[in-house]
Amino acid sequence: MRKLLVIGIGAGNPDHMTVQAITGLNRADVLFIPDKGARKNDLADLRREICDRFVTNPASRRVEFDVPVRAEPTSSYRSTVDDWHEAIAAIYEGLIRDEITGDGCGAFLIWGDPSLYDSALRILERVRLRGNVAFDLEVIPGITAIQALAASHKTALNRIGDSVLVTTGRRLAEEGMPENAGSAVVLLDGKCAFTTLPDQDLFIQWGAYLGTPDEIIISGRLGDVGEEIKKRREEARKEKGWIMDTYLLRKQE
Amino acid sequence: MRKLLVIGIGAGNPDHMTVQAITGLNRADVLFIPDKGARKNDLADLRREICDRFVTNPASRRVEFDVPVRAEPTSSYRSTVDDWHEAIAAIYEGLIRDEITGDGCGAFLIWGDPSLYDSALRILERVRLRGNVAFDLEVIPGITAIQALAASHKTALNRIGDSVLVTTGRRLAEEGMPENAGSAVVLLDGKCAFTTLPDQDLFIQWGAYLGTPDEIIISGRLGDVGEEIKKRREEARKEKGWIMDTYLLRKQE
Repeated sequence: MRKLLVIGIGAGNPDHMTVQAITGLNRADVLFIPDKGARKNDLADLRREICDRFVTNPASRRVEFDVPVRAEPTSSYRSTVDDWHEAIAAIYEGLIRDEITGDGCGAFLIWGDPSLYDSALRILERVRLRGNVAFDLEVIPGITAIQALAASHKTALNRIGDSVLVTTGRRLAEEGMPENAGSAVVLLDGKCAFTTLPDQDLFIQWGAYLGTPDEIIISGRLGDVGEEIKKRREEARKEKGWIMDTYLLRKQE
Repeated sequence: MRKLLVIGIGAGNPDHMTVQAITGLNRADVLFIPDKGARKNDLADLRREICDRFVTNPASRRVEFDVPVRAEPTSSYRSTVDDWHEAIAAIYEGLIRDEITGDGCGAFLIWGDPSLYDSALRILERVRLRGNVAFDLEVIPGITAIQALAASHKTALNRIGDSVLVTTGRRLAEEGMPENAGSAVVLLDGKCAFTTLPDQDLFIQWGAYLGTPDEIIISGRLGDVGEEIKKRREEARKEKGWIMDTYLLRKQE
């Protein structure tokens, strides 16, 4: 049976790699590297750096592949994602069938952790349901941007005994701060949804390029630092051509 | 200035240790080990195993210390915690002042990640506010039980584009499943709060002793496996004398 590892490689700092992830990288004969000819070249370089530094298995090969671009969401976000995942599933199926031998081992390298806002596990489930190639799956957890954010701000995510909502920029803009949690961690926010919140007394702890030498962190009362974050974010995005950022919003205790 | 590292050491599998955490362990002259004479001997053994395996710095010392037991929550959960944290802050202050030299480095080893349902950062902030000893703080993230749970179940935590509520057993019992998130991750649940939920069609993915050789995982429709989880949990707790478990609840998509 083909073996497939889905490995969380951390949030951008190669030192986020766990012993388990390093061992996993070296168990694989084939490492699948997405974003062939990626525009986000820094991230591709970083992934390459991780492989160069930690892969010691001489039998290891790297196979780069293209990831189709997701269509802009139209009426149904869910159905756009559905089409996109089906297209990627066909690619994964081909990679598993053609690049892993019958008893070989392949690995997908996932930024952060495979369990959070990443599609690989969901898409591999589709591949399994298509029924054309069988494989045994193993998942190796990784440090997420959320944990890197909290570490850089030296903060806990939760208030004492309280809940934390992990959410997206889209949902924060639509739903506002949750009533059932004292803190919200926001990911995938390209539009600075925090600027839409009425409560300017929220405390925000923001970070971009977390764990990398380019890391920027800003924290303070939303009313005081919200515009500064928006400005720094836009400047950094223009200068580097891309940005990955996340933030924690906390109600006053 | 004294340097203090707060290091996430993962959820129970020593292989969860990151390169950053291993480096941190070895930067410290003093490792602070809580639970002197702990009842949860497996956990104390596991922490010792992590130190034995990863500490290569010959100058490294270990200092064990007692952690006061928290009083049973009375009228105010918050004020009980407050007293407890103040008592621990006094202990931390003494350790930092007496065990770390003026330019030395000490490290606290934290299960999981220091940012999630752990008091160390909050208590160290108290120590700083007490003003009796100055230190420079650095936080190193670690793999949480949440990520170990998701990896063992080979699952994503979030539904597509949806939020995840990270919460406690106490809150789940009081508030039920969140309306603003398709999934809830529940920690610190000693009372099987999942058995109180009216919706028996929720999907539950439960795990105990995650990442260790004793790991148990069970998943299924809550109505089908809820009682089995409760039973297995109680048996395992009795047999080992302690249990650490967590679970993910997900609404039908």
